[in-house]
Amino acid sequence: MGCRPVAAFVSIAVSTTGGDARSFLERFYDGIGDLATEYEFSIAGGDTTAWDGPFAVNVCLIGTPVCNSPVLRSGACDGDQLYVTGPLGGSLESGHHLTFVPRLNESRWLAETNCVTSMMDISDGLSLDLHRLCQASGVGATLIAGQIPVSDRVDSEKSAEQRLLHALGDGEDFELLFTVPPTSVADLKRAPFTVHHIGEMCQAGGICLSRNGATENLPMTGWRSF
Amino acid sequence: MGCRPVAAFVSIAVSTTGGDARSFLERFYDGIGDLATEYEFSIAGGDTTAWDGPFAVNVCLIGTPVCNSPVLRSGACDGDQLYVTGPLGGSLESGHHLTFVPRLNESRWLAETNCVTSMMDISDGLSLDLHRLCQASGVGATLIAGQIPVSDRVDSEKSAEQRLLHALGDGEDFELLFTVPPTSVADLKRAPFTVHHIGEMCQAGGICLSRNGATENLPMTGWRSF
Repeated sequence: MGCRPVAAFVSIAVSTTGGDARSFLERFYDGIGDLATEYEFSIAGGDTTAWDGPFAVNVCLIGTPVCNSPVLRSGACDGDQLYVTGPLGGSLESGHHLTFVPRLNESRWLAETNCVTSMMDISDGLSLDLHRLCQASGVGATLIAGQIPVSDRVDSEKSAEQRLLHALGDGEDFELLFTVPPTSVADLKRAPFTVHHIGEMCQAGGICLSRNGATENLPMTGWRSF
Repeated sequence: MGCRPVAAFVSIAVSTTGGDARSFLERFYDGIGDLATEYEFSIAGGDTTAWDGPFAVNVCLIGTPVCNSPVLRSGACDGDQLYVTGPLGGSLESGHHLTFVPRLNESRWLAETNCVTSMMDISDGLSLDLHRLCQASGVGATLIAGQIPVSDRVDSEKSAEQRLLHALGDGEDFELLFTVPPTSVADLKRAPFTVHHIGEMCQAGGICLSRNGATENLPMTGWRSF
């Protein structure tokens, strides 16, 4: 994280059995073209083919760090504060996963301000991705249930408990999850975007959820490809 | 062309309905690992996912020119001589398309020797790919039928005419097709690999096959994805 995109390689396999894909492909490449213009990267290549399987696409985006080195998920320390850039949950059901704004500007600001020790985006769910960040950093964490921003994409008629589970495990949010040392927390006040303080890193040994004055183990919910 | 590989991004979609792919994937990644070691590039990333479609893989390989700039397919000139690095035809039927040796060393030597005006690899068939080279360069070409090396992967019991058609249109050969100006032809004698002289570039206007003392238009045979 903390990189600017340089070039995209867009590969597609068009289905020979799925009807005419021309209209879809025109919108697809228009969308990629718009992003390339906005975020100043090139569409540098990729494969195009056809097969009798379903439509498939793979985009490989390469970039370069905005500072000296990228911000990894392995730098979080005991005592760091945990933040997220936006509300979570309900992405797949609402179609948000196809229309979200990539947090490139936010990632760049955080890297340039040099206030983050670790950063990743939430693609498979806050809980699962936080477990990965903790494992890579060799630390534990405590999430504060009442401070986790639940998206209004999650059905408001569901119970608070159910809504929290959506925020923890739905995934496809593509918000930034990052850690800030206590000495840099004040820097975040100058951030030109919203940040939500959702917890704190601790020594390795447990990843917990704190609510109603009690602490419980955080189940590792989220999307698993395998 | 004329580049050395730097990094590969390997993306796979494993079929959830196709049985256990573990053994195949181990051999697949072993093979990529061997190539990465031999040709000195990194396996720098890629996506892994599972879906209910067939197994799918996409490899994006980025590189850097061995000289000042890459050798393009657009540099061929009227009078340049046309060469290929190896025999053609029968690749898909014989399985050669899964075991071929990428012509990276040959490409590098040709670029460093600075003797080529254009270069591409033959993936979709000599005839179709030569048409593309001619179109990009704004020239025509004459292939000399009797000098086109037909691979012994092509059934030897077929007629000479049929064997030639395989060499022209089968594709998946992954040999280099390149053009050399008359003043640089002598440099090729020092090449530490075999080259086959198969024709000559001419002014735009026709791509022809010369045989038995006559010249005919070269049909644009080859693999077309769409």
